[in-house]
Amino acid sequence: MNKLLQFLLFTLLVGCAKEKRALVIQTDFGLKDGAVNEMKGVAFGIDPQLSIYDLTHEIPSYNIWEAGYRLYQAAPFWRAGTVFVSVVDPGVGTPRKSIVLRTLTDQFFVSPDNGTLTLIADNLGKKEVREIDEQRNRRPGSGASYTFHGRDVYVYTAARLASGKISFEEVGPLLKTELVRLDYQRPLLQNQICKGNIPVLDVQYGNVWTNINDSLIKKLNVAIGDKLLIEIKNKEMPVYTSTVPFVNTFGDVPDKTPLAYLNSLMNFSLALNMGNFADSFHISSGKDWTVQVRKAAQ
Amino acid sequence: MNKLLQFLLFTLLVGCAKEKRALVIQTDFGLKDGAVNEMKGVAFGIDPQLSIYDLTHEIPSYNIWEAGYRLYQAAPFWRAGTVFVSVVDPGVGTPRKSIVLRTLTDQFFVSPDNGTLTLIADNLGKKEVREIDEQRNRRPGSGASYTFHGRDVYVYTAARLASGKISFEEVGPLLKTELVRLDYQRPLLQNQICKGNIPVLDVQYGNVWTNINDSLIKKLNVAIGDKLLIEIKNKEMPVYTSTVPFVNTFGDVPDKTPLAYLNSLMNFSLALNMGNFADSFHISSGKDWTVQVRKAAQ
Amino acid sequence: MNKLLQFLLFTLLVGCAKEKRALVIQTDFGLKDGAVNEMKGVAFGIDPQLSIYDLTHEIPSYNIWEAGYRLYQAAPFWRAGTVFVSVVDPGVGTPRKSIVLRTLTDQFFVSPDNGTLTLIADNLGKKEVREIDEQRNRRPGSGASYTFHGRDVYVYTAARLASGKISFEEVGPLLKTELVRLDYQRPLLQNQICKGNIPVLDVQYGNVWTNINDSLIKKLNVAIGDKLLIEIKNKEMPVYTSTVPFVNTFGDVPDKTPLAYLNSLMNFSLALNMGNFADSFHISSGKDWTVQVRKAAQ
Repeated sequence: MNKLLQFLLFTLLVGCAKEKRALVIQTDFGLKDGAVNEMKGVAFGIDPQLSIYDLTHEIPSYNIWEAGYRLYQAAPFWRAGTVFVSVVDPGVGTPRKSIVLRTLTDQFFVSPDNGTLTLIADNLGKKEVREIDEQRNRRPGSGASYTFHGRDVYVYTAARLASGKISFEEVGPLLKTELVRLDYQRPLLQNQICKGNIPVLDVQYGNVWTNINDSLIKKLNVAIGDKLLIEIKNKEMPVYTSTVPFVNTFGDVPDKTPLAYLNSLMNFSLALNMGNFADSFHISSGKDWTVQVRKAAQ
Repeated sequence: MNKLLQFLLFTLLVGCAKEKRALVIQTDFGLKDGAVNEMKGVAFGIDPQLSIYDLTHEIPSYNIWEAGYRLYQAAPFWRAGTVFVSVVDPGVGTPRKSIVLRTLTDQFFVSPDNGTLTLIADNLGKKEVREIDEQRNRRPGSGASYTFHGRDVYVYTAARLASGKISFEEVGPLLKTELVRLDYQRPLLQNQICKGNIPVLDVQYGNVWTNINDSLIKKLNVAIGDKLLIEIKNKEMPVYTSTVPFVNTFGDVPDKTPLAYLNSLMNFSLALNMGNFADSFHISSGKDWTVQVRKAAQ
Repeated sequence: MNKLLQFLLFTLLVGCAKEKRALVIQTDFGLKDGAVNEMKGVAFGIDPQLSIYDLTHEIPSYNIWEAGYRLYQAAPFWRAGTVFVSVVDPGVGTPRKSIVLRTLTDQFFVSPDNGTLTLIADNLGKKEVREIDEQRNRRPGSGASYTFHGRDVYVYTAARLASGKISFEEVGPLLKTELVRLDYQRPLLQNQICKGNIPVLDVQYGNVWTNINDSLIKKLNVAIGDKLLIEIKNKEMPVYTSTVPFVNTFGDVPDKTPLAYLNSLMNFSLALNMGNFADSFHISSGKDWTVQVRKAAQ
């Protein structure tokens, strides 16, 4: 076998051995215009072998909290090495920083430093945060454009990182400040009452999800079939107060009946079987919405 | 050439020779939250080389009939070996079965056994149906979760089947019962009248599609240009009665004029050129909507 | 090394050296039914190695102008060799031609010849236009179907071209006629007034985009911070007249304040910081909408 063939074979083997990495994109752009496609064109241009996936592009405009929640919801189901890029950026063009967070799970999150990564940092852990050096990590020829960092900086950097064209260190220097954080109510147990926040609705079905996980609920000493007293407030105003059964799944109660259950993230949730709980009882989500749960008289 | 290189080259050739298979996902989850992305993360985690495509995620909530219709509509355009996974599952968490149907076209359909696969079975033929053994075919660590079978059982099993990590036999035992079926009116010809059902609307344009195919229509002895007498009923109540020309395509009649044509599936359909037939005449779809077609006096 | 192994290795190297090409699909079909998925099934069937991307499927029904604008917006961010297929086709089934345009950027655009490619031809340049020979370039078995050219001719031809199964010449003969064009107002400068058209809205945010680029604006001798007098008309009727600051980005003005800026395509645009300019001032887009810009007294 001649030297050339040996070299080619070696190149080929190294190429095939390289793990294929996913690039997962999230924005508040919607899919009606060409913006998301432009971002994919840039990523494909950097490496045609990248696997590009959408998280969602339907984040409500400028809703940083929901962007953070969707990343937190999806990330645990992706491999180590996956690069997420989230562009929900009301401060585009102002001096807010652009960052890449490496988690303890060895996943990478590219985003403006505006609080989007609060829940990711809290739940997956911060290994290292770097500030994107926008001089070096910017799409060639895009310097004069002030308004599409998502394409010219964020996905450009994310795709180069995912494809191995740059190392994490080449993103830029370590972030010197603390991550910008969003304030939110942590779940807690006090006097046999669980208190928590409604971070998000399961919009498609109108289910109400809380940030109270199964282990906290178990400390109430409740079992499947028990009745729970639920109180939902918007700021200090009571919006919903009722007794609801704690069940495994929707079909365990009659149609149009409220139920409490653990959702697919093992968080305490409320639903109406074959109906829309949030619409029916005028419940929304955000930092001002709180839930209290206690064991009812059985 | 040393033994190691021979082995690597062989591995490489076998890898490249393996046919790349598609995984096609359908749900009623919408794309506003992270649910569909979680499913894709699980599939990518099983095999980064899989080609993952969306059918639609906009099936109306719990609409098993429409889920089945979309599979029937799309499947003929995909290769043998393609694995479809459809998660429209009002009975999630109840004792309904989880199945994989292998058709005579050697395509695979993963779904709850709730009637979704009625039209696929009728039209592509059943080669074999297996019940998913959820003990063996369940995402590791997901045992305690009762509510996201789409991610933890269906796409997990579908991706492992598509990537060759399990054989069809390893899905689980042959289904011992009959497939759950949805009742629907079959197309028929009686006394020179074609009778059929409106299985679905072409929602984007408001065209009305029927389950009467071209060969049945031909038995009415009609030619392009002929006038047809159309009668549409909801249950027994007449909703639309009119004479309509049978044409090749929309542009053959003036704007805002009704027409009858054969759609891309060669099924008899009704439309309004540059307009919305269904909205204009208050037509919907489902098992209670019937159409009668006969040749009018010319 | 035996001859067979040499041959296989060579085949493998040639296969790997082949550049992976993207196929980018745009339609007005929406994603609620199976139509887009059928197109992808056909493309995947032709070559499972193709990289298939969506531009958008939310082009308003039959809106040829917007289809053309989206292609113009996205194409510059994709590699040479990329094949775009756009199916917005109110004349489907009538004798309108099916064409493939090769631009000076060596990208390919597959579309009905109905004006969709006007902006692409004007901005990326025509290298060659061929008419699709629908006898040879049609999905086998689809001859009797009159209504889904998007699947049976357009994506079929586009996928075969992208995968190298046919050369550009094999698409069909050179187009003998001129491309069908849409009329639109070109940007111009007269008596220190820039005049242009509103080709499209940035729908997600309600920003108003014009076809006046940065170099024309610069001829007004304006600098960042200057005030501009803006006049927007629908046909000859004035709809909006006001003085607006020319800034780098949204955050440079208070909330709910109008601003003029250069968008990510370096075109002159108008917005309301944290608001919706188009809705607030009843502005839409299309050929009847014009903008005049002049430097205001500072």
